[in-house]
Amino acid sequence: MSVSQKLLSRRNLTQLGGTIRQVLASKSNDESIHVHGWIKSIRLQKRIAFAMLHDGTTPKGLQVVFRNPTQAKVLTNGASVRLTGALTPSPGPGQHRELVAEAVEILGACDPESYPIQKQALTTEYLRDHAHLRVRTDVQGAVLRLRDTVMRSLHDFFHENDFIYVHTPIITSNDTEGAGESFRLAPIPSRCTDRGVTTQDTEFFNKPSYLTVSSQLHLEVLSNAVARVWTLSPCFRAERSQTSRHLAEFWMLEAELSFVRSVDDLCDVAEASIKHVLRLQSLDRDLLQADIGASWTSTAAAASEVPWARITYTDAIRELQNSGARFEFTPLWGSPLQSEHERWLADSFAHGPIFVTDYPVTIKPFYMRQNDDGKTVACFDLLVPHVGELVGGSLREERSTLLEAAIKRQGLDEEAYRWYTELRKFGGAPHGGYGMGFERLISWLGGIENVRECIPMPRWSGRMLL
Amino acid sequence: MSVSQKLLSRRNLTQLGGTIRQVLASKSNDESIHVHGWIKSIRLQKRIAFAMLHDGTTPKGLQVVFRNPTQAKVLTNGASVRLTGALTPSPGPGQHRELVAEAVEILGACDPESYPIQKQALTTEYLRDHAHLRVRTDVQGAVLRLRDTVMRSLHDFFHENDFIYVHTPIITSNDTEGAGESFRLAPIPSRCTDRGVTTQDTEFFNKPSYLTVSSQLHLEVLSNAVARVWTLSPCFRAERSQTSRHLAEFWMLEAELSFVRSVDDLCDVAEASIKHVLRLQSLDRDLLQADIGASWTSTAAAASEVPWARITYTDAIRELQNSGARFEFTPLWGSPLQSEHERWLADSFAHGPIFVTDYPVTIKPFYMRQNDDGKTVACFDLLVPHVGELVGGSLREERSTLLEAAIKRQGLDEEAYRWYTELRKFGGAPHGGYGMGFERLISWLGGIENVRECIPMPRWSGRMLL
Repeated sequence: MSVSQKLLSRRNLTQLGGTIRQVLASKSNDESIHVHGWIKSIRLQKRIAFAMLHDGTTPKGLQVVFRNPTQAKVLTNGASVRLTGALTPSPGPGQHRELVAEAVEILGACDPESYPIQKQALTTEYLRDHAHLRVRTDVQGAVLRLRDTVMRSLHDFFHENDFIYVHTPIITSNDTEGAGESFRLAPIPSRCTDRGVTTQDTEFFNKPSYLTVSSQLHLEVLSNAVARVWTLSPCFRAERSQTSRHLAEFWMLEAELSFVRSVDDLCDVAEASIKHVLRLQSLDRDLLQADIGASWTSTAAAASEVPWARITYTDAIRELQNSGARFEFTPLWGSPLQSEHERWLADSFAHGPIFVTDYPVTIKPFYMRQNDDGKTVACFDLLVPHVGELVGGSLREERSTLLEAAIKRQGLDEEAYRWYTELRKFGGAPHGGYGMGFERLISWLGGIENVRECIPMPRWSGRMLL
Repeated sequence: MSVSQKLLSRRNLTQLGGTIRQVLASKSNDESIHVHGWIKSIRLQKRIAFAMLHDGTTPKGLQVVFRNPTQAKVLTNGASVRLTGALTPSPGPGQHRELVAEAVEILGACDPESYPIQKQALTTEYLRDHAHLRVRTDVQGAVLRLRDTVMRSLHDFFHENDFIYVHTPIITSNDTEGAGESFRLAPIPSRCTDRGVTTQDTEFFNKPSYLTVSSQLHLEVLSNAVARVWTLSPCFRAERSQTSRHLAEFWMLEAELSFVRSVDDLCDVAEASIKHVLRLQSLDRDLLQADIGASWTSTAAAASEVPWARITYTDAIRELQNSGARFEFTPLWGSPLQSEHERWLADSFAHGPIFVTDYPVTIKPFYMRQNDDGKTVACFDLLVPHVGELVGGSLREERSTLLEAAIKRQGLDEEAYRWYTELRKFGGAPHGGYGMGFERLISWLGGIENVRECIPMPRWSGRMLL
């Protein structure tokens, strides 16, 4: 073996044996190979037997043929096995190649009577209750791979555009949006020391600490030195509301960039990054969409030459008022858009993604950059069909006097935000950014009704398994 | 403009203007361009002036020449600017090209008197106190970019080897290693409801919840369906110890794979993944190493054809006992290796990375796979010079009777781990995995003494800024 062959084998970990993806992609035929996986289905006939073998590396799995059907009698759904056999061209439809099995080794048996993941359709609720097993279903396997594919696509996009991937803190002393929706860490309980003295409860960090609700303020620290940064970070909201779009623990993509001076430019970045993802080829995505019998995203939305609709909040309110649609909440300038309004704008007005920009200053957080009209701020929400709000972003107020006035006006603790205003005093650059709920993106791409099915182990009010 | 040009411009966000990296990489000369950044240094001469412009996208920045030195008089260190000028071949040493400035626009002034980040060397402690500004130093900028480069390298390695990148929960009901080092979430405080009734303090999830100390158990859920998974996840330890290798919040790479049946194979995966990172070209890494005047990693360690040393714990204890070295703690079979022992094994015995395998069952967690000798478990630690323990991993006990016995023996709550033992009962495959502290990896690669300098906003006992 030459050195370069050795390098290859070390790097591709061939000593572990091939995955099903590798086996299906390899060129060799009729060689005896070993392959590992879990049995997904078995078809016993008189003179032949078939089984589907999955290892999660591909959506489709490997068809295995047993020329001696008694060999297959030891198999049960869910069992993990090591098979030896020859990879040969498949005469049947649905696959190019199949494994003609020679030897079967059961690595982990699976009792078909008690196995909770039966072949027949299982309800969403049942699968949520079996959180440790539901990833074994085709749908959840596809979601897991789709998340991976989408992340790689995003990494590519941001890297090509000179964004640095960064990690921002999870435990923080500040409570970004202030609405009492943060999880707080418990103080370290009192205990007996070696000397028999009982200590007081103490804050581990000597001050109250919370789980982050957004990485934005921390990203601004970094984007004021490294001009373009992004992260995909866990975020936490202690909200009691139970909707199909909210989780207590979720992943949020946030990007922040210096030297951006208009909301339009910021929308361009968000639009380009999402179109990049929409253009990716993913068999898993195709399968998930086939599962619902429709696609929630259109090919048109992915096309670069067709810009997504953009409308100001003020114009959006007017369109809503003139729509003739019946809303539970009357659209009124100065009030937040309700979900029903957002849905109408994306589904019925734009028939696709739509940016709504320049909301009233009174309904937005202190850090958004004030427009010259004094009434609105330079921000946007991206609304998409089926899901509603997918992205929210803004230019950040980089003028320290205006920022300090906004902090005061909203009754926030000026001392707590001193470091944040200092960013502006020492070479603060015009900048902006946005955040996108990753599970909402997966929901939209995959046509998955509820974000609880878009993350392997969802957490919401009253519910945390594993 | 053709459609394909439009596609390119949309995708590369050229409307934002080029970053310094793009400007330096572009082929055009003498065209008038705009470029943004922060001033890092200024040299005023009688007939000419120079400045260095940084935007964090490259370690080196862009040299700017002012043919009219009065133009440069408005500049101060730290100010953010927009410069217009022509990119021309540089006659001076140190750069191929430079910007000959035509116009200067100050975007954010920076008062040189009060700016905390002065040109002279600042102590590590001073910079830690200025957490919101320290990323503006060359060293912290390099660390941020190195983290990004290393992450991309790891993504490439794992993707090529069919590992799926996954997200595991941060909030969890279990306390993996059980040593009381978990952060606990505070119950939601009592409050007045709309009806004037005061509610009780309640657990948001209806049970005690903690921050994860390791993703391993959750990864095992996934790797029992998708055979190879990995994550880079925040982990939390409420440890009071203050060493150069510990943080209360840190990032851990964890990989888990099914169908691996020997510790040697597992070591191969860890070794291949780290060697892949060691081979990457990084100017930032070179600069960090130049800063300490040495490299903590050797070219030999990166070479594929030289396997890293491997030794069993039992043999390691013997070597330590026969070493003639003076240790504070006597090396004794059955006791954990102390830091001084680990350092001796990597620095003086192996002169490089070394795997220590098969530790006594009595000093390891319940989930590690028992060896046939009944006394040791199939695990490894990877020790590297300067840093000590970089990686820890093991085969996991997949035999449910042995696993249940271990849970009982260690006095753990059998009911709490029922889902974990069930993974074995339904098609459980032989599997294993490992975890690597990401900040320790950065420390080793960059030759950075303390992990507090390897993460932008470090947290440790008593300390959390921002």
